Amino acid sequence: MLSVLLELQRLKRLDRTGWVLRGLPPGAESVAAHSYGVALTAMLLADECAARGVEVDAGRVLRIALLHDLQETRTGDMPRTVADYYGKEARRAAERAAFDDIMRGAGAGHAAAYAELHEDYESRASLEARLVKAADVIDLLAQALAFERAGSRGLEEFWDGAAERDFQLEGAAREVVREVVAALVRERAVVSSQ
Amino acid sequence: MLSVLLELQRLKRLDRTGWVLRGLPPGAESVAAHSYGVALTAMLLADECAARGVEVDAGRVLRIALLHDLQETRTGDMPRTVADYYGKEARRAAERAAFDDIMRGAGAGHAAAYAELHEDYESRASLEARLVKAADVIDLLAQALAFERAGSRGLEEFWDGAAERDFQLEGAAREVVREVVAALVRERAVVSSQ
Amino acid sequence: MLSVLLELQRLKRLDRTGWVLRGLPPGAESVAAHSYGVALTAMLLADECAARGVEVDAGRVLRIALLHDLQETRTGDMPRTVADYYGKEARRAAERAAFDDIMRGAGAGHAAAYAELHEDYESRASLEARLVKAADVIDLLAQALAFERAGSRGLEEFWDGAAERDFQLEGAAREVVREVVAALVRERAVVSSQ
Amino acid sequence: MLSVLLELQRLKRLDRTGWVLRGLPPGAESVAAHSYGVALTAMLLADECAARGVEVDAGRVLRIALLHDLQETRTGDMPRTVADYYGKEARRAAERAAFDDIMRGAGAGHAAAYAELHEDYESRASLEARLVKAADVIDLLAQALAFERAGSRGLEEFWDGAAERDFQLEGAAREVVREVVAALVRERAVVSSQ
Amino acid sequence: MLSVLLELQRLKRLDRTGWVLRGLPPGAESVAAHSYGVALTAMLLADECAARGVEVDAGRVLRIALLHDLQETRTGDMPRTVADYYGKEARRAAERAAFDDIMRGAGAGHAAAYAELHEDYESRASLEARLVKAADVIDLLAQALAFERAGSRGLEEFWDGAAERDFQLEGAAREVVREVVAALVRERAVVSSQ
Amino acid sequence: MLSVLLELQRLKRLDRTGWVLRGLPPGAESVAAHSYGVALTAMLLADECAARGVEVDAGRVLRIALLHDLQETRTGDMPRTVADYYGKEARRAAERAAFDDIMRGAGAGHAAAYAELHEDYESRASLEARLVKAADVIDLLAQALAFERAGSRGLEEFWDGAAERDFQLEGAAREVVREVVAALVRERAVVSSQ
Repeated sequence: MLSVLLELQRLKRLDRTGWVLRGLPPGAESVAAHSYGVALTAMLLADECAARGVEVDAGRVLRIALLHDLQETRTGDMPRTVADYYGKEARRAAERAAFDDIMRGAGAGHAAAYAELHEDYESRASLEARLVKAADVIDLLAQALAFERAGSRGLEEFWDGAAERDFQLEGAAREVVREVVAALVRERAVVSSQ
Repeated sequence: MLSVLLELQRLKRLDRTGWVLRGLPPGAESVAAHSYGVALTAMLLADECAARGVEVDAGRVLRIALLHDLQETRTGDMPRTVADYYGKEARRAAERAAFDDIMRGAGAGHAAAYAELHEDYESRASLEARLVKAADVIDLLAQALAFERAGSRGLEEFWDGAAERDFQLEGAAREVVREVVAALVRERAVVSSQ
Repeated sequence: MLSVLLELQRLKRLDRTGWVLRGLPPGAESVAAHSYGVALTAMLLADECAARGVEVDAGRVLRIALLHDLQETRTGDMPRTVADYYGKEARRAAERAAFDDIMRGAGAGHAAAYAELHEDYESRASLEARLVKAADVIDLLAQALAFERAGSRGLEEFWDGAAERDFQLEGAAREVVREVVAALVRERAVVSSQ
Repeated sequence: MLSVLLELQRLKRLDRTGWVLRGLPPGAESVAAHSYGVALTAMLLADECAARGVEVDAGRVLRIALLHDLQETRTGDMPRTVADYYGKEARRAAERAAFDDIMRGAGAGHAAAYAELHEDYESRASLEARLVKAADVIDLLAQALAFERAGSRGLEEFWDGAAERDFQLEGAAREVVREVVAALVRERAVVSSQ
Repeated sequence: MLSVLLELQRLKRLDRTGWVLRGLPPGAESVAAHSYGVALTAMLLADECAARGVEVDAGRVLRIALLHDLQETRTGDMPRTVADYYGKEARRAAERAAFDDIMRGAGAGHAAAYAELHEDYESRASLEARLVKAADVIDLLAQALAFERAGSRGLEEFWDGAAERDFQLEGAAREVVREVVAALVRERAVVSSQ
Repeated sequence: MLSVLLELQRLKRLDRTGWVLRGLPPGAESVAAHSYGVALTAMLLADECAARGVEVDAGRVLRIALLHDLQETRTGDMPRTVADYYGKEARRAAERAAFDDIMRGAGAGHAAAYAELHEDYESRASLEARLVKAADVIDLLAQALAFERAGSRGLEEFWDGAAERDFQLEGAAREVVREVVAALVRERAVVSSQ
């Protein structure tokens, strides 16, 4: 377990590249800090879904959220544009291989279970994985809004199409995510009108 | 939910005061990044405990880990020494009140459940809460080790008594935590002998 | 004296929490840098007061300014909101105790005199203490204005009611402080209209 | 030309990932700052080679040095380990495509010439390209030495095998590079013995 | 050569003072990063000039660009205003002496040639030196624009008179520089109108 | 007064160049933070001198300490080496002119008095000025020690000859300064022996 504990420390320093490339100062948001935001957001989403009658495994949601960016200790946080150059398949294969190499350190008995969760996220197979993807985008928007409220500009592209984004969710889960995204978009309209 | 999502963004920037007061540069570790480390560590501990036959609610472990420092958006990350001046009881009452104020934004149906988890952590009532406390210390030591490997000095006090620390755990849970702490202490001996 | 000299170094790194929580980057303003601003501002205020016939002990003003935040080496720089949770009395008692513990290092012959200055500031007993409080707010506004001129947003709350704030000053001292605050508010109107 | 000028600004902020992953603080070295180091080093190497009778096109050396990392505005600065996961060929193809997309902005008449220089560097076809690769490694070692002199630790791997590294150079060019690398290794021995 | 390689590392950390004094955070732009921007810009300008029939020694352009701020390892990056206090002549003499002291480390055979390039830049004697000065200003404007797009304000003074600035260039060289500056000024009008 | 209050804000961001050139990260120590350290140190020195029977004007000591680096808002914090290139006289004249220009904003009635204090410091005419110079060096050593305790290396030159440095003080004042410097040197010996 030790090797995993030591390797995860790297995520606390690694900057989210997207912000750096748009002029935010070094240290604006680390990958670890974002992963925390995604996990807490995913918990709130899952609990609200459950309260509205959706059957969702909140424990699985949290595990996926905590694991989904772990491979960046080895691949770095690549900007969106890089996927266009490597291709989606190559990117997924590389991230999966890096994840598996890290998790070998968690012990033979555990690595397979963690790999299954990671694969679920990448393929968005389960409701839980799709909720984490929604949480990933919601935390991104909440961070963008926080930056914009503090004076940052030039982040429009993150908001384009946000309200209509389809997370392949249905029923109450779809409603919950839509409401949160819509609330963020409304708050943001206040900032950008100033 | 929106108010909680926006407020948690503050933890991504808030420095862990303990490092700053010991000379680490600004941005060394944010509260959010530490909370991520605690949650991932807690997951690994809980899963290993379960593999050794301990009955543990991993979902509850993750919820407690994600919530345990959330009130710092309002109280700041106070250095250890501050508790000596305010008293443990006053500190707990203040943190609890701040936590409840934040979580009012999560909706009436949820606030009570989150408050129960927070209270559990503060009183170390359940096995799950005690595992999160162990994860809190383990992530602190792993971060200290990472800093020391990179050249930081003057962090001895974090290691004093670490190997003997009692987390009020029993049986296999106690063993798992002891093994991880012992492994960290051994790794650290290598660094400090250089 | 050595222990005080070493402990004060911590203030050079400690960020002013209020800015961090509002999205300013790490390192925006240290407690030591703010204390410098307060002391220089207090000197200018005291000298202008004296020029207008106010009897003021400028040396005492400077001592109070240099000492007023020193206890933050042990308590950290707590955000405003924290006072609501701890209560004003508990906060004052804690800060006083921390200050006295630090100043024990200044030598028995000096600690009492420094404690008296600190207590004066906390209770705003003397004209000198009230001038330092005015300088504390003026340097805060000047810093906020500097951040806003450089593009920061979301700092409105620092300006709300600034022009009417009562520092319990009278006569020419009241005039001097009012003129400076009014000049800052005017300058700020230029920035926020752009 | 404008699009290239604006895009290159990103390299001034982008951290060299290798240092971040080893615990150096944000802002330790930007990709642009490293590229400057490589270009100046390459100039010194080329001029010394010329002084010893090597026929070398110094202008070409400088062009290759300035262009060799430009594509990182789109691919980010990927850590070494990432190449193991993507494969060397995929990485080269992606970097080449990103470079060409950027340089389309330099005008039709110029893009092909810049692409030829970039390709030369990637394949180490010319003496000039091989000198830039040597300068790339020499600036990396000089930066590592500067970090180590300032107290950084844990950078041993950059020095392993440095003295024996083969840059496919011959004659006086080989000598010049060897002498510089050997001088760095000697200086470093002083630091690591302290 | 070693001493030069080690000394240049300092430029990677040294902040451009002009930005710091206007409220940009530490690490906004290092002197080395700016020098990289100037060199790449100068290459693009020189190549476009050549394409339009101007006889220009691009190798010389690149050498001057890489060397023009090197002395700042010893003099620091002084703000513009400082020249008013020291006088232009004193500043030039000091920078020249510092440059020569650094370059003594490049070997007796090389120092004179480098000094000649540095002197050329200071006196703007050649077309090549004047193109580097234009690149120096263009990279400054491109950086200012990047900061403004990201939300920075208060940088108007860098744009005042930019469009009319005379770089003592003629014919096609004059045209090329004018076109680039005009394109930057147009782009900037978009940002400042938002 | 407003112009002085706004201009002093710059010192909160301006890094002390000496640390940056030796590899400390951006934001290690601002000029304002150092000035705070000097002022507090000077107060402690003056009070101890007074307690031992030295006649010293503590108010004057504090004023000189707060003003002695103010001109760096316009001249920047120049590294030591730069004085060798400009000459001590030119440096003093430039700093004096910059200081006077800033203080014109303090009002006609005050500028002359502040100029006299600044001149006193530059010429070390009074006991008070010499005590501030001692405080300037003591705060530098205390900061260097704090950096070294946290792992920084390569700061030996600041300690060379520190114990023997002559501040042109006599009697008890000389003793007080010697004792403090000696205590720092002893503490430092502990760090460097580890």
